[in-house]
Amino acid sequence: MKHKETILLKAQQKEVVIGIIGLGYVGLPLAVGFAEAGIKVLGFDKSQQKVDKINHGENYIKDVRDAALREVVENVTFHATTDFSEMSKCDALLICVPTPLDHFKKPDMSYIQAACEEIGRNLKPGTFISLESTTYPTTTEDFMLPIIERESGLKHGIDFWLAYSPERVDPGNKNFVTKNTPKVIGALTEDGLEVGKAIYSFAIDKLHAVSSPRVAEMVKILENTYRLINISLINELALLAGKMDISIWEVIEAAKTKPFGFQAFYPGPGVGGHCIPLDPFYLEHIAKKFDFDLSMIHTAGHINMRMPHYMYIKITTALNRHKKAINGSKVLFLGVAYKPNIDDERESPALTIIDTVLLKGGEVSYHDPFIPSIKTENGNNLQSVELNADTLEGADCVVITTNHSVFDAEFIQAHSKLVVDMRNVIEEASEKVYKL
Amino acid sequence: MKHKETILLKAQQKEVVIGIIGLGYVGLPLAVGFAEAGIKVLGFDKSQQKVDKINHGENYIKDVRDAALREVVENVTFHATTDFSEMSKCDALLICVPTPLDHFKKPDMSYIQAACEEIGRNLKPGTFISLESTTYPTTTEDFMLPIIERESGLKHGIDFWLAYSPERVDPGNKNFVTKNTPKVIGALTEDGLEVGKAIYSFAIDKLHAVSSPRVAEMVKILENTYRLINISLINELALLAGKMDISIWEVIEAAKTKPFGFQAFYPGPGVGGHCIPLDPFYLEHIAKKFDFDLSMIHTAGHINMRMPHYMYIKITTALNRHKKAINGSKVLFLGVAYKPNIDDERESPALTIIDTVLLKGGEVSYHDPFIPSIKTENGNNLQSVELNADTLEGADCVVITTNHSVFDAEFIQAHSKLVVDMRNVIEEASEKVYKL
Repeated sequence: MKHKETILLKAQQKEVVIGIIGLGYVGLPLAVGFAEAGIKVLGFDKSQQKVDKINHGENYIKDVRDAALREVVENVTFHATTDFSEMSKCDALLICVPTPLDHFKKPDMSYIQAACEEIGRNLKPGTFISLESTTYPTTTEDFMLPIIERESGLKHGIDFWLAYSPERVDPGNKNFVTKNTPKVIGALTEDGLEVGKAIYSFAIDKLHAVSSPRVAEMVKILENTYRLINISLINELALLAGKMDISIWEVIEAAKTKPFGFQAFYPGPGVGGHCIPLDPFYLEHIAKKFDFDLSMIHTAGHINMRMPHYMYIKITTALNRHKKAINGSKVLFLGVAYKPNIDDERESPALTIIDTVLLKGGEVSYHDPFIPSIKTENGNNLQSVELNADTLEGADCVVITTNHSVFDAEFIQAHSKLVVDMRNVIEEASEKVYKL
Repeated sequence: MKHKETILLKAQQKEVVIGIIGLGYVGLPLAVGFAEAGIKVLGFDKSQQKVDKINHGENYIKDVRDAALREVVENVTFHATTDFSEMSKCDALLICVPTPLDHFKKPDMSYIQAACEEIGRNLKPGTFISLESTTYPTTTEDFMLPIIERESGLKHGIDFWLAYSPERVDPGNKNFVTKNTPKVIGALTEDGLEVGKAIYSFAIDKLHAVSSPRVAEMVKILENTYRLINISLINELALLAGKMDISIWEVIEAAKTKPFGFQAFYPGPGVGGHCIPLDPFYLEHIAKKFDFDLSMIHTAGHINMRMPHYMYIKITTALNRHKKAINGSKVLFLGVAYKPNIDDERESPALTIIDTVLLKGGEVSYHDPFIPSIKTENGNNLQSVELNADTLEGADCVVITTNHSVFDAEFIQAHSKLVVDMRNVIEEASEKVYKL
């Protein structure tokens, strides 16, 4: 195989050029990782703004160190562009584009499709292609491969190799970043796997090979389905526990003392982010093709979709203590990020709750130290207000939707008339403090 | 409080007498644990056979060391009896009776009720009472307390203390036994908690106190519900993976390389044992009283109930390769224990599958190195056959239902015409080997 020998030799001499398609929370850290290893990286993104920022050494992803980005850009190891024809300079193309759900919770494959079309049009023979985006099993083989072959006129296994290697980025995780998180990879051919390992090992410490892309696709879905299922379970149990006068938080703390066979999950206003609320439904989508009903995912999805509504009810119940209705009440939300200490509000249940409260006539404000402004699903635009004694005291109800570490439980409690704590920020429930 | 001072002083001088009610896989190790700490233990059980065995120093629980039992019996630290009036000699009574489900999957509280009645009739003032059996939240307070007060004429908080402290016995676990597994305890009063801690600390290294029995009851249910939910999820995904030509075992091995936020569960013919298939339904039972539908448990239960049926279908599909029907085929089951390396077949899905195969005209035999004979739900009695080349060769289909470590995958594969492997004992699927 001439192409294989060429790319492996180039890799050995660190002369491969890596193209990263999509420069978000997955692609940017990966690009910087390769560049830091001394590999030349071309970053592709449709956003001129992102590309300009990168080429000026300006970082916009919390998990990337500003200095690291600046250094690799200044050393010309990493350059970003909106010009997809430059893909022809790359020996490997790693696709890190979004795979959202549409409004009907169906997979939106348009980003993968567009990436494959661009790749097909600009593909240099002898290129390794890998998808990192979460998607349903069979995507690489049955969805991507035909597009790339059609657009390029090239033949897989002879002219290029295709693999799937799911990202495992956990935003805000200080212990595990792109480099030291083991990475699963499944290629369509043995050659593809060999080349893929040679490429990825520049940026990833440990690779775990599986026998096919579809196995790797299923791995990623299993990991996130596991999380969805368990968060949904604990959310459902939290609602029951509330009725039974049992603190679910106390229950979880005690269950955690079991030294085997248990992993703690915590309830909250619902699951958010770009992975857990979405990935399992990719599997549900493909399962239909196999006449298969994934009842666990279906049930978990149902609970999760209802959580913001239940949380709205909790707010009305709390206000009711003060003989107040939502309609006309001032409600201050603390935290709109979908998890603590990050600046990402995608799919955050806080936004859904805010929409409901607004719809019912509540006067909503919010504070989030990491997110200066939000636009909700219903198109409501809000700016973060300051968190101080005045803003707390001015609210009829303060709702803690994200447990950012900077939130001072005592201060919030001292200055609020009424608190609905959905995140166990305040230790004790009381007349004034409603807890999930 | 006179009673409290008395019992704490007795405990300090190691002069308390502990009564253990129910001498099964929970009660017997606990009894031996107290006795080994030099505390006098009276064991209560309705089974004359068990009581006789114990008093002759004959052990019948795998997790108890034979020598340990013999020693404490010979030293007269531990004595067993069927005479419940001897409860009046005890300072603490720990209830370790079964809490099964009836045929309609409703809690069978008769064992707890009987224990409470016996306790009530024989209670000495100043006694600490604790329930260890898994049950629905509110049992201790709303079910047990009234029975004991009524039968004894004594008053809780004045004459006796009641607590709930769930067992966490994991049969076959070599690392965590009764003593070194942290134990949760929730009492109805602070005095009860203080006394309970003094008592239990003789046999348990680490106690974790919670604010009420109902919290402790929920802890135990959460632990086992977590397991049921996750086993059901992986079973459902295994069925889909089978249709999609994906090895679920390979998927799980790869997912395990994620160093955070994942815990591996494995598929199989269904969940068995005395805990996981039962405990969550105790919660479902009480939830109805609160007009609450536990959809995750319901769905998980549905999958689990169907698994033996799906496994029966797998056997028919495998036989179909050889143009054989179940009717008239010889089917040899390997392993009937509900998990590997233990001698317990309670609620084991293997028994349900055996019943189905028999019902459909299959000729069933089984081998289990730890279980010499079985009686199925349908009343079929079978004796374990030898596992050798002849018995394997004589079967039209060999079904691996339990992954006992002693099973030799190569030997089984070499001598079988056809294998249905439900436990990933044989590495590779093939013409001859069907895998779940």
